[in-house]
Amino acid sequence: MELFLGVDGGGTNCRAAIADQGGMVLGLGEAGSANIMTDPEVSRRNILAAAEAALRATGLGAGFGDLAAVLGLAGANVAAAARRMERDLPFARVRLESDVTIAVKGALGAEDGIVAVLGTGSIFAAQREGMVRKVGGWGFRLSDLGGGARLGQAILEAALLAHDGLRPRSGLLDALVVEAKGPEGLVTFAHGATPRDFAALVPRIFAAAALGDAAAIDVIAKARGDIVAAIDLLSAEEPLPICFVGGVGRLFEEQLARRYSERIRAPKGSALDGALAMARGVA
Amino acid sequence: MELFLGVDGGGTNCRAAIADQGGMVLGLGEAGSANIMTDPEVSRRNILAAAEAALRATGLGAGFGDLAAVLGLAGANVAAAARRMERDLPFARVRLESDVTIAVKGALGAEDGIVAVLGTGSIFAAQREGMVRKVGGWGFRLSDLGGGARLGQAILEAALLAHDGLRPRSGLLDALVVEAKGPEGLVTFAHGATPRDFAALVPRIFAAAALGDAAAIDVIAKARGDIVAAIDLLSAEEPLPICFVGGVGRLFEEQLARRYSERIRAPKGSALDGALAMARGVA
Repeated sequence: MELFLGVDGGGTNCRAAIADQGGMVLGLGEAGSANIMTDPEVSRRNILAAAEAALRATGLGAGFGDLAAVLGLAGANVAAAARRMERDLPFARVRLESDVTIAVKGALGAEDGIVAVLGTGSIFAAQREGMVRKVGGWGFRLSDLGGGARLGQAILEAALLAHDGLRPRSGLLDALVVEAKGPEGLVTFAHGATPRDFAALVPRIFAAAALGDAAAIDVIAKARGDIVAAIDLLSAEEPLPICFVGGVGRLFEEQLARRYSERIRAPKGSALDGALAMARGVA
Repeated sequence: MELFLGVDGGGTNCRAAIADQGGMVLGLGEAGSANIMTDPEVSRRNILAAAEAALRATGLGAGFGDLAAVLGLAGANVAAAARRMERDLPFARVRLESDVTIAVKGALGAEDGIVAVLGTGSIFAAQREGMVRKVGGWGFRLSDLGGGARLGQAILEAALLAHDGLRPRSGLLDALVVEAKGPEGLVTFAHGATPRDFAALVPRIFAAAALGDAAAIDVIAKARGDIVAAIDLLSAEEPLPICFVGGVGRLFEEQLARRYSERIRAPKGSALDGALAMARGVA
């Protein structure tokens, strides 16, 4: 009996699913983060832990060597790191894909469309006749405009500008400075903050914007502009259907419901579904 | 005989000068970086090495305990780190000031004016009747708009956007992607880059802009806007004289020569001069 492993690894956690050729899911597993750019060794350990848990859940007594695996991993668009990881994993067959490829396959299946993956980072992909074109997703420091980490960083930058008198103050900006016990506290936070730490501010930004906070509205408008630019670039030839995925994606789906009303579709399945379908060779 | 120590510590190096009460400089010393936010222990060691070298150069056989010191350090605007460092240094008297305070005292002496300190970071200060008001300077991650690190980061961000088709390409942007052997190389560089690494791109950005590169011109124009906003905020009450200091400062002094022509002044002295004058109690 041939078994198929799909893995969806990201900055927060790593999920694994094992299925048979018919697509029946036989076991699920979960472990910590798997971003191969940030920490390849931790990622490898967490991938094996998630796969091991999924294997145990099947109750079949199979091992790593019985699995044909497709893994979608944050950072897998950086080719050198991806080749090393493929070599180091003990599965019968291993194929690494970027987290966005499995998200696209999960959301669209084989159909044409655009997927906006908006979480801590951001990446946009268009699938046309099975070919996928990607935009963005190069990471927090130089890219991922519209993603949660850049949103959080932008509101803190605005808070310091307002503190200095370089932009209008707002309720949210004042609150951020006060809670940090002054601008030094914001600097200290940012010095050690991971992208996830910055992204943790997103729910507050959207809550403040809903109450009319001008700075929160500005930061969201800037991100919305970046998101629209990427979607419209990918739609230049034809108005493809659009799926928003990820926690920040759901927030911007609401923001953009009017602009793209006829084109927005619910995703068919998750990124993990996409990895599993690719492992089974049906996507 | 009373001796006075001035120290100018920054992200690149740390310079020390010892003078007598009359202001006669008796010894100079130099060591590595002293940014107390980034690495307090390395900073402390480099400060002592620079002071030790300056003491030796005086040939007077005096020790740390004979020195009344004023130190201007990058990161000293973060109060908690500054208090710890003051406690830990072995001089007879120790006063920590931010790097911008000693730059202001060095550039303006006791006169009213504005100092734009533009190097890897950026900070702006206005002195009026001895009182100094500061704007910016909160560090690379949330602030320092117009500084070299943000300029370098902005051109790399633009290079990735152009690679993805999200903004027009330019000769400089194409060259940056090619030299990095593709976008992955830029991501890898940025992942490990310090603010200084980003700032090292500044000469190329200005050289490309001089040859008409539209992306370089854009990035400089954005930084110039941020610099003008800070200077104009500090000038709201009256058109004070302006000194540009730091490597990036000299580049923007040229850019802004027409806008502020009547107001631009050469600095009276260096930041190290400023620290020494403060140690002697004459600034």
